[in-house]
Amino acid sequence: MNGSNRTSGSPHVVIIGGGFGGLSAARALGRGRWRVTLLDRNNYHLFQPLLYQVATAGLAPSDIAYPIRSILRRQRNTSVVMAEVQAIDAAHRRVLLHDRQIDYDYLVVATGATHSYFGHPEWATRAPGLKDLNDALGIRHQVLQAFERAEVETDLARQRALLTFVIIGAGPTGVELAGALGELACTVMVRDFRNIDPQAAHIILAEAGPRVLPSFPAELSAKADASLRKLCVDVRTGSPALALDRHSVRLGEDVVETETVIWAAGVAASPLGQTVGAPLEKTGRVLVAEDLSVPAHPEVFVIGDLAAYVHQTGQTLPGLAPVALQQGRHVARNIMRRDDGLPTEPFRYRSRGSLATIGRGAAVADFGRLRLSGQVAWDAWALIHILQLIGFRNRMLVFIEWSWAYLTRQRSARLISRHEPGVDRSADPPGRHRPVARPENTFMSRKAT
Amino acid sequence: MNGSNRTSGSPHVVIIGGGFGGLSAARALGRGRWRVTLLDRNNYHLFQPLLYQVATAGLAPSDIAYPIRSILRRQRNTSVVMAEVQAIDAAHRRVLLHDRQIDYDYLVVATGATHSYFGHPEWATRAPGLKDLNDALGIRHQVLQAFERAEVETDLARQRALLTFVIIGAGPTGVELAGALGELACTVMVRDFRNIDPQAAHIILAEAGPRVLPSFPAELSAKADASLRKLCVDVRTGSPALALDRHSVRLGEDVVETETVIWAAGVAASPLGQTVGAPLEKTGRVLVAEDLSVPAHPEVFVIGDLAAYVHQTGQTLPGLAPVALQQGRHVARNIMRRDDGLPTEPFRYRSRGSLATIGRGAAVADFGRLRLSGQVAWDAWALIHILQLIGFRNRMLVFIEWSWAYLTRQRSARLISRHEPGVDRSADPPGRHRPVARPENTFMSRKAT
Repeated sequence: MNGSNRTSGSPHVVIIGGGFGGLSAARALGRGRWRVTLLDRNNYHLFQPLLYQVATAGLAPSDIAYPIRSILRRQRNTSVVMAEVQAIDAAHRRVLLHDRQIDYDYLVVATGATHSYFGHPEWATRAPGLKDLNDALGIRHQVLQAFERAEVETDLARQRALLTFVIIGAGPTGVELAGALGELACTVMVRDFRNIDPQAAHIILAEAGPRVLPSFPAELSAKADASLRKLCVDVRTGSPALALDRHSVRLGEDVVETETVIWAAGVAASPLGQTVGAPLEKTGRVLVAEDLSVPAHPEVFVIGDLAAYVHQTGQTLPGLAPVALQQGRHVARNIMRRDDGLPTEPFRYRSRGSLATIGRGAAVADFGRLRLSGQVAWDAWALIHILQLIGFRNRMLVFIEWSWAYLTRQRSARLISRHEPGVDRSADPPGRHRPVARPENTFMSRKAT
Repeated sequence: MNGSNRTSGSPHVVIIGGGFGGLSAARALGRGRWRVTLLDRNNYHLFQPLLYQVATAGLAPSDIAYPIRSILRRQRNTSVVMAEVQAIDAAHRRVLLHDRQIDYDYLVVATGATHSYFGHPEWATRAPGLKDLNDALGIRHQVLQAFERAEVETDLARQRALLTFVIIGAGPTGVELAGALGELACTVMVRDFRNIDPQAAHIILAEAGPRVLPSFPAELSAKADASLRKLCVDVRTGSPALALDRHSVRLGEDVVETETVIWAAGVAASPLGQTVGAPLEKTGRVLVAEDLSVPAHPEVFVIGDLAAYVHQTGQTLPGLAPVALQQGRHVARNIMRRDDGLPTEPFRYRSRGSLATIGRGAAVADFGRLRLSGQVAWDAWALIHILQLIGFRNRMLVFIEWSWAYLTRQRSARLISRHEPGVDRSADPPGRHRPVARPENTFMSRKAT
């Protein structure tokens, strides 16, 4: 079994998390004398940059998720185990699952991040965020259901509240969600209802700061702002979310009646980082050394959204897929070097630019000196994302879905699951391997309270 | 609103159910002086003949489901309302929802069927059936999870039980499920695991009667039987399911240790039929007159799986999609005739044959004198099903998925949702329109007990 003793000949590398970071580390370790075990609580790798399209009924879950086993099937030195890690016991070099332990020689922690509600964990139920497929399907359900309820609502004030959607936070996720929702209401569903006009939907993108996409250059923020307004999105900068109750949200001085609030504002590191035994920065990310290892444990590496890596420029690297991918490959190299008795090498991030999409034919791209917007940025965005999707099959399907949506202005995945996905312990198959929730699960789940 | 009074000029036709029957009736009534309201508890039409492919990770839910609103968007006389019908009040010509009533001049009831556990409703939790997307995703979850649990199980007897899958009932659904599961284990997942061999999975298809596909000619049953055995399926005829507990099932004289049991044996009519005020036959179907109306209420029609229609040959028509489609169109014609003061016409079913698929390149087809099996039957099956899928987009995607699966022997939708879909009331958005479960919901749901 995977928990086999590390005194056997081949060193055992354990990787926790099958996201961009963990998977790229596992792939780079695919050949060699070591054994690799990749642990993830899901059986699939998720292409998170397109998750907002699942939330807005543009793509099916299986278009952006792929079984980790299939991705790594050719690596005979690699086992994939679907399990929740409870804690890391770095002193004894082992990882604790709820029913057993796994020893390691080298450990890569890549469990990413969850939402932060800035001291208001009770808002999680009311304003779900977007981190995994469950979140995305829950938001899709809530949005489509709001239109259905508005169609049969006779009280005009309540109808108006049902057709008001508030997205909090205008970073890339918030902007992409708002744009996709604007398209859904203003073009996709236009002729589908009899009593309501979907174009009357009120989509508010609320941002505490002075402009949308704060991490982009100001000129691109202005272009994104203009594109959002064309898609019926009401952009409100300088509007922090101050209070939230069942039927309304307070944005700065304004109280907005709404049934649907989506959270795209704060990020908190995965709580597993607290068990690594290393210093954390304020959002809970693990402060890593230059070679991505943890100060007291040179055999433990932390990468991706969970790592706080102070860049050569003095800034902490942002939580982006390219950072995680590069760190995964780098950490694999450092493990090989250390196993060969060589010194590890410091990580250097090579930025390839950043992109955000707003809607059909509208995006912004910042490639350093080259800044793009409009159709050409959208084309670049679509091309890059399709090329990066793992597996030829998913690439082809997403390309078809997008071409189809682009030509017909239809959306494919407008299904309201009869019941929102949620924790249903009673339906779990009987047996010992019933999954146990990780701490952030309890905190994050929309039914936490 | 839809509950508007029937004394207005245009007669109001209410259709309950957006399956094959209800939808074909709605389409046939798309032009004319009447108003049409179609009620369904889901927002999508489901192409049920391919549901088993969602359950076995071959297709995504959105490949076989399409929003009813989009299908009927061009019919300006038609409203679509997502709602659960509680009962029919035929005496006052109205339909009761949980929060309001809808008056009708003509009513078409097309709510289909659910599972029957032959007096053992407590088996529903242990042996889920396959009627809607929720069922399919639940079964997919359970099957994929069983392989994951087997991979980390150290007790060999328990591992064996985890890799044993029992399907009860060898009608078309049971045969298709068993074949697809056989393919999944024997070809798709072959190289994905390290501790188990998926080809060692034991797939049992248990049938109480003497042969599989009892509604087909005996020669095709024999062909199907042989094809199933090639796909590692252990076909056991003369083996009724007699007892069921958490870890085993008794099939005739044998007790089989298994964690996964799927029910494909019995069908019971939707309980809404009991409120129509008409005589029922023993499985709960409504006995309809020759013109598909109900004896005491000539303005009420029952079609599809809910109707017991005694055919010109003296047999009751089976619950098949072509029957429902033809009845939907016929009922629309009869409503028009009655509204014009003309006598209604008796329904006549024109059978176009029946088909069942077993796996890659293996199927059986019974077109009366023409009986096919093997590759040519599979080709016919694939062609007919693709042509019948509503919407060009779904057709194209399913064609691609199948071509891909055929060429590569891969499956696309092997995602284990972290939590099985289930009833999660606490996550419902607040408000008055919270859906109320229909009686069969409570009975049918996998967490009923």
